[in-house]
Amino acid sequence: MPGRADGHKHLLSIAELEAADIIGLLDSARSFAEVSTRPVKKVPALRGRTIVNLFLEASTRTRMSFELAAKRLSADVMNFSTSTSSLSKGESLKDTGKTIVAMGVDAVVIRCPSAGAPQMLTEWVDCSVINAGDGMHEHPTQALLDLFTMRERLGRLEGLKVAIVGDIDHSRVARSNIHALNKVGAEVLLVAPRSLLPEKIEQMGVTVTGSLDEALTWCDVLYLLRIQMERVNESRFPSLREYTLQYGLTQTRWSRLERKPLVMHPGPMNRGVEIASGVADEVESVITGQVSAGVAVRMAVLYDVLGGSRG
Amino acid sequence: MPGRADGHKHLLSIAELEAADIIGLLDSARSFAEVSTRPVKKVPALRGRTIVNLFLEASTRTRMSFELAAKRLSADVMNFSTSTSSLSKGESLKDTGKTIVAMGVDAVVIRCPSAGAPQMLTEWVDCSVINAGDGMHEHPTQALLDLFTMRERLGRLEGLKVAIVGDIDHSRVARSNIHALNKVGAEVLLVAPRSLLPEKIEQMGVTVTGSLDEALTWCDVLYLLRIQMERVNESRFPSLREYTLQYGLTQTRWSRLERKPLVMHPGPMNRGVEIASGVADEVESVITGQVSAGVAVRMAVLYDVLGGSRG
Amino acid sequence: MPGRADGHKHLLSIAELEAADIIGLLDSARSFAEVSTRPVKKVPALRGRTIVNLFLEASTRTRMSFELAAKRLSADVMNFSTSTSSLSKGESLKDTGKTIVAMGVDAVVIRCPSAGAPQMLTEWVDCSVINAGDGMHEHPTQALLDLFTMRERLGRLEGLKVAIVGDIDHSRVARSNIHALNKVGAEVLLVAPRSLLPEKIEQMGVTVTGSLDEALTWCDVLYLLRIQMERVNESRFPSLREYTLQYGLTQTRWSRLERKPLVMHPGPMNRGVEIASGVADEVESVITGQVSAGVAVRMAVLYDVLGGSRG
Repeated sequence: MPGRADGHKHLLSIAELEAADIIGLLDSARSFAEVSTRPVKKVPALRGRTIVNLFLEASTRTRMSFELAAKRLSADVMNFSTSTSSLSKGESLKDTGKTIVAMGVDAVVIRCPSAGAPQMLTEWVDCSVINAGDGMHEHPTQALLDLFTMRERLGRLEGLKVAIVGDIDHSRVARSNIHALNKVGAEVLLVAPRSLLPEKIEQMGVTVTGSLDEALTWCDVLYLLRIQMERVNESRFPSLREYTLQYGLTQTRWSRLERKPLVMHPGPMNRGVEIASGVADEVESVITGQVSAGVAVRMAVLYDVLGGSRG
Repeated sequence: MPGRADGHKHLLSIAELEAADIIGLLDSARSFAEVSTRPVKKVPALRGRTIVNLFLEASTRTRMSFELAAKRLSADVMNFSTSTSSLSKGESLKDTGKTIVAMGVDAVVIRCPSAGAPQMLTEWVDCSVINAGDGMHEHPTQALLDLFTMRERLGRLEGLKVAIVGDIDHSRVARSNIHALNKVGAEVLLVAPRSLLPEKIEQMGVTVTGSLDEALTWCDVLYLLRIQMERVNESRFPSLREYTLQYGLTQTRWSRLERKPLVMHPGPMNRGVEIASGVADEVESVITGQVSAGVAVRMAVLYDVLGGSRG
Repeated sequence: MPGRADGHKHLLSIAELEAADIIGLLDSARSFAEVSTRPVKKVPALRGRTIVNLFLEASTRTRMSFELAAKRLSADVMNFSTSTSSLSKGESLKDTGKTIVAMGVDAVVIRCPSAGAPQMLTEWVDCSVINAGDGMHEHPTQALLDLFTMRERLGRLEGLKVAIVGDIDHSRVARSNIHALNKVGAEVLLVAPRSLLPEKIEQMGVTVTGSLDEALTWCDVLYLLRIQMERVNESRFPSLREYTLQYGLTQTRWSRLERKPLVMHPGPMNRGVEIASGVADEVESVITGQVSAGVAVRMAVLYDVLGGSRG
């Protein structure tokens, strides 16, 4: 993994990883997944290390998932979120980062609204940095947990046909998944109206369609993105009703499929929008499986970045 | 204790407990109480277990008390409260619960404004659920700590005469205490204006009076409920001044008593409303004793629910 | 250290310490500083002890610093801040303190807007109290970490010439530093407009000037206070531009100095106001050094207060 120039390992994006890095992390995650099923869910791997969750955007799952991952590795973990911080006093990210790290921190897990902020942070602080989602750029641990889930459920990644549906343009989840799936040899089909696709997206090595039904007959995995409700009134976005009709996994669409794909969603789902509530209930075990995978993958990432060897 | 159908033990209400369950928990709490008086306030009973405090209503004491109880049993504990959650993004309790538990959680302690939500949660999640107060329904650990305190101070529960004063109708604390006291053979007298009593309350096996003075000459324990200030302007509520005159433990009432009852309050007290400040100071050690008992009782409940045997 | 009458040790102010107490804490902090540089940043010194951070004012650095210090001593630490507390329900500091401590707490670290509240708390609660900043009164651990930094960088405290620049009148940091520097034999010069100096400040054993340039040629240490932006529109305060011109460490002032003093700041810095951004970058390692010193000093204080011997 890159970022060793300063002696620290980081996880900033999927784009910078090699396929072998990705596979290595998934293998490591598999062995950590076992820890979370034990009565005593703890290994001493990172005892005495300090990890800070620097969350400058609201988040439930990701923060808790990293916090649990850190605790299960026996690390000390501290949460720093905007509401309780002095960022409200105008302290910049640079000064905040330097201050936190000066306390003797081994890794900062950062979630922030600005693309590239985690990369910038690596230039300012003397510790490992893990990107937990930066603006519309990347969300690398989400892609890793998604690939982990696909591999566990379907037995392989190479040659897998994955359709990603929704607001691709604003989605860091989509971007990280496209990179990751490309690297491991899966095929990606994007399903979205043109207004919600980045320009020249085909250059990322994906194909594009406006027809969900076409995608459904083709794919092994249907990955539904979450609709950001606050975008619905923007001019590029269709009405909610129209979106659901064209891009929602409705009960009708689902029922008439002979071969059902693996349905995935980063959560939380908007039931009745991108997925019918009945379908959501039916596929729920996969989606909660993604959540479980998240803890295992983040344990693997923390362990890797903080000096564990991948063998 | 019920709720074992799915293989998990829960604590949802006092109503569903047997007297023997209550006594068993109080006995267990007595041995845990000793832990909090040691210099090293920690036992390894629940090491490696993960407990989530899911608090959807503001609370100080109860959240901290459960957090401390979990830490003293060496469990890992995480707080999830509305302000920092994605519930603001419209995630439902069901999906939130399933998500949290998918991370590998052993118990969820839930405080919420909706009566019955903890019960519903048990149908959705694969872990133990502990009710830390649900709407106007129940607050079982509060009743347990109250009974613990009565037993420690007065040496018995059976035959004890307990008067509960205040807004019974809106009080989950009153409801849990009535159930608990009935089960262990104590007598309960409710002191309140008719407008603050549920209809047909006598069917719960209690007697009712409008006269605090009558109750004071009768009771061994005087349990004052906290007045919810936001209710005072509602039509069913007397004015504050009138409330204090009729139902407040004023200095005059207190001073003229020859035989003083044990005065209890769930806290925080409204000094000058339900209790005169001078009386509050005099009886304070009992009320802080309730707080101490809270940690011990919650240790006992967590230990019981997560597989500790009550012997 | 005073405050042993009730069997507990406290840290309420620098004013009440002897020079030997200060030096003892700095010596102890030096040995704890080493812990934070280890891969396993943990010693079992306070295992099983419970420390509560009772923060009634927003704070990033101080809360995190105390939290880390407690964790590195293996104590259990809980955060209690106004936003999540029942203080919004009108619970007084006294009742809050008593409630928290009744849960079995060994030390309360309190940050609050009222001068003297930590002292009052010691009369109400049966545990150690540490002042983490009380109104405009004192911020003793800040002064200790400042002296620690001066001694590490310059090799001595006695005879050191320290100029403190800014809004002295409203600064608990200034007040604690003046006391501490006086006690250990350093000389203090205050640099501020008369409107931002307390009356009769010279009685504290300091000298005063309105000329930063005069101070710069004299001092070994230049300590810049943070400008509280919310005060700038008050009548006693010069305009920001005027403040920077007269009392700011501008690039011009800094560049023409032949002998550069050690520049310190409690953080977070207002770049372009009390210090030019370029100068801030140049002296940054000292300022982040203060942050690092903060954890070590707070470990020393917690260890001292909770019964560790200073030998």
